[in-house]
Amino acid sequence: MPSVNPPRGMRDILPAEKSRRERVLTVIRDRYRAHGFDEIETPVMEEYARLHAGIGGDNEKLAFNVMKRGLDAEAIRAAADSPASLTDLGLRYDLTVPLARYYASHRAELPTVFRAIQIAPVWRAERPQKGRYRQFMQCDIDIIGDASSRAEAELIVASLDTLDALELTGASVRINDRRALIWMLESFGFSETERPGVLITIDKLDKVGADGVVAELRSREATAPAVDAFEIFLNREHAVDGGGFGDQQIRGMLPPGAPDEIVDHLVSLGAAVASARPGADVPLVFDPFLVRGMGYYTGTIFELAHPSVTYSLGGGGRYDGMIGRFLGQEVPAVGFSIGFERIVDLVDSQDSTDALAVVIVHDRDVPTAELLAAKSALVADGVRVRLEQRTKNLKGLLERAASDGYRQFATLQAGQAPDTLDLKPLS
Amino acid sequence: MPSVNPPRGMRDILPAEKSRRERVLTVIRDRYRAHGFDEIETPVMEEYARLHAGIGGDNEKLAFNVMKRGLDAEAIRAAADSPASLTDLGLRYDLTVPLARYYASHRAELPTVFRAIQIAPVWRAERPQKGRYRQFMQCDIDIIGDASSRAEAELIVASLDTLDALELTGASVRINDRRALIWMLESFGFSETERPGVLITIDKLDKVGADGVVAELRSREATAPAVDAFEIFLNREHAVDGGGFGDQQIRGMLPPGAPDEIVDHLVSLGAAVASARPGADVPLVFDPFLVRGMGYYTGTIFELAHPSVTYSLGGGGRYDGMIGRFLGQEVPAVGFSIGFERIVDLVDSQDSTDALAVVIVHDRDVPTAELLAAKSALVADGVRVRLEQRTKNLKGLLERAASDGYRQFATLQAGQAPDTLDLKPLS
Repeated sequence: MPSVNPPRGMRDILPAEKSRRERVLTVIRDRYRAHGFDEIETPVMEEYARLHAGIGGDNEKLAFNVMKRGLDAEAIRAAADSPASLTDLGLRYDLTVPLARYYASHRAELPTVFRAIQIAPVWRAERPQKGRYRQFMQCDIDIIGDASSRAEAELIVASLDTLDALELTGASVRINDRRALIWMLESFGFSETERPGVLITIDKLDKVGADGVVAELRSREATAPAVDAFEIFLNREHAVDGGGFGDQQIRGMLPPGAPDEIVDHLVSLGAAVASARPGADVPLVFDPFLVRGMGYYTGTIFELAHPSVTYSLGGGGRYDGMIGRFLGQEVPAVGFSIGFERIVDLVDSQDSTDALAVVIVHDRDVPTAELLAAKSALVADGVRVRLEQRTKNLKGLLERAASDGYRQFATLQAGQAPDTLDLKPLS
Repeated sequence: MPSVNPPRGMRDILPAEKSRRERVLTVIRDRYRAHGFDEIETPVMEEYARLHAGIGGDNEKLAFNVMKRGLDAEAIRAAADSPASLTDLGLRYDLTVPLARYYASHRAELPTVFRAIQIAPVWRAERPQKGRYRQFMQCDIDIIGDASSRAEAELIVASLDTLDALELTGASVRINDRRALIWMLESFGFSETERPGVLITIDKLDKVGADGVVAELRSREATAPAVDAFEIFLNREHAVDGGGFGDQQIRGMLPPGAPDEIVDHLVSLGAAVASARPGADVPLVFDPFLVRGMGYYTGTIFELAHPSVTYSLGGGGRYDGMIGRFLGQEVPAVGFSIGFERIVDLVDSQDSTDALAVVIVHDRDVPTAELLAAKSALVADGVRVRLEQRTKNLKGLLERAASDGYRQFATLQAGQAPDTLDLKPLS
């Protein structure tokens, strides 16, 4: 007999949690739609070759592969030295690879600037650990076909508005530009070939600190004068949290001589986000050391921060090269993913519809027709109704209903008219 | 380069269709919740052994199997004669097997009578054909822990109410009881061992007619006098659509001497459904030849019919034996599944939120900050807003927006104050 537990690293969702998740998803969907994004859906499976084309980074190794149907003994024996020939499909490990395929397939049916919403699960065969699951939801918005910073601004404004609507106000966005990073490394004197490795090291700054980063660079035998220059820059005083997002502030946090193109892009992005949220502080924080992992980013990169938590609640960036790989033609693209599983834990569990939720506790002998009549009369009035047959442990029954979100109860005897139900609050 | 199409037999969903699907899902979820059902979620994958325990009927053969991770050449060679040893997980082919596992796992955390909603995709590696997909949505409600006809009545009333809310009024439910079928076959003289085969043949009545059923029974060499008796019964006059759902009408459609227990169950179910829908005709039609495919049904079975279509829009039945197989203890259960993919095609595509959807057509030189300010002001007023840069083909641009559900547009020039936007209807 197999176990009654869900598969390793996956989970069942109980009613109260499912209700909360659906409420959060509705808010996210509604807010993103208000900002002009359109939701799409792709199958959970993609072709194996598509999932393993080098775009998914480390996630490719974590894909769940689906076996070809109808394999016989001979085919299996022949596949012993190339297991990939046993599989033709896999479960998606992100929503970006499917989006790129979708856009390449349906471009003619989509607006010139396509603003996509994807709210869907992904699967990764990661080593199970606390708080990490092998199936989890992703909520992505992407803008395809707009190379201007308007796209970044729309993504950021829509995401902050969504957090506001979830009563997670006060969020901010750490922001950088891959081009700024590359220029900076160049200006220190790192060679082109060592830059990817240097970025991986800088990405650990939050964890290991400036000294740790410098030590790792030295142990990697990166160009020594470049490491020296970087060390000086890392340790000089600069106002990371200095507030403001103007030309001066941004230049003040970069080595001298930063290219106008990059600085102007960031400044105009800040002005756009500010204009969309009048009266609020500019919710952007320039972080010249923000790297983000994925190799496909080409421009702006950002991460969503909230004062209630130390970890990031989402992030994204510009990836102008990727869609072109599928389409055979360059198409600009930028995306923002909010961390649904993290956000749902921060949202208040109170469901406003619970106020109109009633448990009818009935005696065993009430005819089914009378029960259904009483229930339907309340449902027609907009009330959520659960029927419960009276048990000896009435208190336990009512406590369970209260924990399931019901706020009132009434008792019903045989022969009692539905309009005489006496609703009482559940403690 | 892999194809840009979705995998064989699966489909991408475009924005207009996705929006309609989500609207329908919201109505279904909301109505079922109002009727006291609670939504749950399980992982899309289940253990291979669980999916192939004999409960899924023919669907078991259609499961997509997931390869074990980290297989080496030796393991693959060793598996040549037992391909199942290459897989440990599979994608669910229905929502009933996962529900049974879920209930067995979480029973202590659930109400005594558990009313479950499951709205989720399932996968079947069927031969692709028009209108059939290898990934499709199922919307199931189930009541576990109530052996009385109250459970059937609640399922039927909630489902009809849901169709009403989708403006698919006038639906009805064809109903029968497996026990009535078995008693009927017994009364004609079919032996116990031949009854399952006879049921499979009767299930084809709609397709092949009474003569076809009798011919198939004779070619199967079923007990000849039993087939004769059945033929006489099939061809006698009885009012299938006679209306009414009382003791007399039901007995009138069965051979003489039907057990009180079965008839009373159906009559009380009819009375309960009627009492929940005062003023409407009883939406039940007794059909003594309704079989339904799955082997696990033990009592009431039903199918949802709507005057606008000839095919069924859903169905279900009582399956008291199944949960017990997981739990090692008998638990009554009954379920109703509505055919989401069929229903969504019948629902009006008009989205009421489109009334507040505006396209802002802007000149190329409008600064991003001004664009975002204008957009955000409208979004804050509850409007859905899409920005579109003016192109030479303005007409085409506006037509596309109209087909995407936008109802108004405004033009925006550089320097124009947001509150001077002039909204005009999109034809």
